[in-house]
Amino acid sequence: MLSSEIINIGTELLLGDILNTNSRYLSIELAKLGIDLYYHTTVGDNLDRIMATLKLALQRSNIIIITGGLGPTPDDITVEAIAKLFEEKLVTDENIVDDLKSFYRQNNRPVPNSAFRQALKPKAAKLLSNKVGTAPAFYFDLENIKPKLLQITLKSPKIILAFPGVPRELYHLWETYAIGILSNYSNEVIVSTNLKHYGIPESALADLYPDYINGNNPTLATYAKDGECELKITAKASSRESAIAILQPVIDEVKSRSKEFYYGQDNDTLELIVSNLLKQFNLNIAVAESCTAGLITYKLTKFSGASQFLKAGIIAYSNEAKLKLLNVDAKIIADYGAVSSQCAKAMAQNIRQLTNADIGISSTGIAGPTGSTTDKPIGLVYFAVATKDNLESFKINLNPTLNRNQIQERSSLEILNILRLKLKNYEDLSHVYN
Amino acid sequence: MLSSEIINIGTELLLGDILNTNSRYLSIELAKLGIDLYYHTTVGDNLDRIMATLKLALQRSNIIIITGGLGPTPDDITVEAIAKLFEEKLVTDENIVDDLKSFYRQNNRPVPNSAFRQALKPKAAKLLSNKVGTAPAFYFDLENIKPKLLQITLKSPKIILAFPGVPRELYHLWETYAIGILSNYSNEVIVSTNLKHYGIPESALADLYPDYINGNNPTLATYAKDGECELKITAKASSRESAIAILQPVIDEVKSRSKEFYYGQDNDTLELIVSNLLKQFNLNIAVAESCTAGLITYKLTKFSGASQFLKAGIIAYSNEAKLKLLNVDAKIIADYGAVSSQCAKAMAQNIRQLTNADIGISSTGIAGPTGSTTDKPIGLVYFAVATKDNLESFKINLNPTLNRNQIQERSSLEILNILRLKLKNYEDLSHVYN
Repeated sequence: MLSSEIINIGTELLLGDILNTNSRYLSIELAKLGIDLYYHTTVGDNLDRIMATLKLALQRSNIIIITGGLGPTPDDITVEAIAKLFEEKLVTDENIVDDLKSFYRQNNRPVPNSAFRQALKPKAAKLLSNKVGTAPAFYFDLENIKPKLLQITLKSPKIILAFPGVPRELYHLWETYAIGILSNYSNEVIVSTNLKHYGIPESALADLYPDYINGNNPTLATYAKDGECELKITAKASSRESAIAILQPVIDEVKSRSKEFYYGQDNDTLELIVSNLLKQFNLNIAVAESCTAGLITYKLTKFSGASQFLKAGIIAYSNEAKLKLLNVDAKIIADYGAVSSQCAKAMAQNIRQLTNADIGISSTGIAGPTGSTTDKPIGLVYFAVATKDNLESFKINLNPTLNRNQIQERSSLEILNILRLKLKNYEDLSHVYN
Repeated sequence: MLSSEIINIGTELLLGDILNTNSRYLSIELAKLGIDLYYHTTVGDNLDRIMATLKLALQRSNIIIITGGLGPTPDDITVEAIAKLFEEKLVTDENIVDDLKSFYRQNNRPVPNSAFRQALKPKAAKLLSNKVGTAPAFYFDLENIKPKLLQITLKSPKIILAFPGVPRELYHLWETYAIGILSNYSNEVIVSTNLKHYGIPESALADLYPDYINGNNPTLATYAKDGECELKITAKASSRESAIAILQPVIDEVKSRSKEFYYGQDNDTLELIVSNLLKQFNLNIAVAESCTAGLITYKLTKFSGASQFLKAGIIAYSNEAKLKLLNVDAKIIADYGAVSSQCAKAMAQNIRQLTNADIGISSTGIAGPTGSTTDKPIGLVYFAVATKDNLESFKINLNPTLNRNQIQERSSLEILNILRLKLKNYEDLSHVYN
């Protein structure tokens, strides 16, 4: 098994000016390639410390992945440190010089002299053209290189791959070059998928899968986040196709066993699923919001094509607006209060009628930190869903230690999940909606 | 000057399952204390590799800050690794045993046997009680400790501080204990502040401060993000008070020199500033949104007390809703289109009248990726602000390569900034608003 480590170079990381998201990205990518990863090290823009870090890494790992320090400014010294460690002279790569000239020509600017530093490399190393920025990636296969200064014997295989620290450029160069290069060194592929769940606690989800939870290939793990849960399933195999063949029956089993708690995979979100279901059934919707204040409607417009199904929203934040814009009966607010199932129902029904929509939905609740009473604590939220023939309300009591924004966020997820379940059953229940 | 390094322990970090936010938090905290930081290292839950990492850290730094591996499960081996390195036996800290018993009693659960592992420590080390979780922090002053296995001479002073990896517990323990302990080792304090700007490009902001940009104490640096810019000013001194005394005249100078581009400090946001101005002047507002689809109204409710100034919002996503809910004249849409200054003005004026608000605002634009024409490209957005005696529209052309969500986000910032500028001048221009 090949071992790897990641070195992130940049004083800004040690000052905490930026969060190191590159090490996580690379960790996930190396895992996918079946390459073991034992260390992340972050070091500043200091020649001696970069060289010491590289020397240590070369003693313990086959594959060294570096980010940062490849740009045009004097504190970008990654290539210089590598060259010095191997006592190699720097030469200019004319292809990269051409890249730089064409990059600046496109931007109608002259090439600054400092930019040409980015075309330097030890003779035996390769620079890999960057299509989204100026700093090329750096690839050094050390198979036939004698490390004079190091006085150590290198493991075989041994390679150094270095990338700019700008995440967008790293991703581009990693996908374009690194996956291909590293696949040659690994005979194992790891594929993972996240199966997303809503409405079930993490422990209950784990209890559904006792037969998988200690499995070896695939492995299955649960993760909880913000009201949602994920099952992460991971398979190892000699090819991507074989790994997917191991995963697929488990994915099918989860979809069947988790029933309505399962809502999607990987990049799916509740708002995406609901948007797609509305489009699929050619239904349109209107939203009446109080405590969520526009968040539900906004989420329904996150994906292209929202105008196919979203008619309108009314944010009736004040009682006056509930009466005047949503025609809620003053008696409902007087008798039950604005935070009540009766008010939620009136809001959903009235927004539906006002906009002539197929579906009307509403939210009204106590987001805090003020406005609560003994009867109506922080975190109490009512929702309603109105269709031509049906009007239903729903109540949740969110944990009152959640802050205002968390209550708004969780409330928006809750009503999206209610909608998802309604729409999933739409084909069976079309008499309710038409 | 004291040197420090951070070691994050946890295989989940090397798998990329979680993002390492702790190293950034600690980097910022160490900088505030005036302690130099040279390395972050992440290592998995492996005894040999943890010991090797610790040994290296002990050779190069005075202060070793560790996170992770302090919990009750068998893969939590941080204390074991430290004890083994120093050939120290583990003893039980009875105070921590009491903490654990009382923690579980409060949760009406018996103490699992595994939990008592968290009360173990080398005799000369100290455990520091954790009020928000079960794993105590760990403090080892190595002044009189002979590292037998290490065969190295330790720098002086030399301490190890270890914390649980759960961010909430780390923050609590850091604030409760670490700042006090480490202040004794540092005779320098570093204080930073971010001065937030909107509406000025980073390069133009830098050009305003040529006399500060290469300064030494305080230092001044510019950062760009999502339409906004920050000036970060940092001062070093022997006390927090002296550092603030260095910063204050520069803060005052920036407020005066940046004029209307400066909007706030550190945790301020445009929505917070606008919310506070509306409260201060006792003005209320109503919002008519098209392309932003509720995002502006939602942002205005992020802080407690929004019901003091927010009357209502109407999300007129479809043309039908613009006509029916906002009473926009059909002729305006026929003649100029829904994305026009005329439509934006009608939306702002009508929402103001419908809700009897002091101020009406609106947004209408092309968020993409579809819906654009030659005349009306992606990123074209109109806003309007209506008051009793004034009706004004504003137009922006955002970069059309921004995605849909970025256009919505930037649009919401733009109108909030327009509002901020209007409200800032409110006292001078009160005849416009009343």
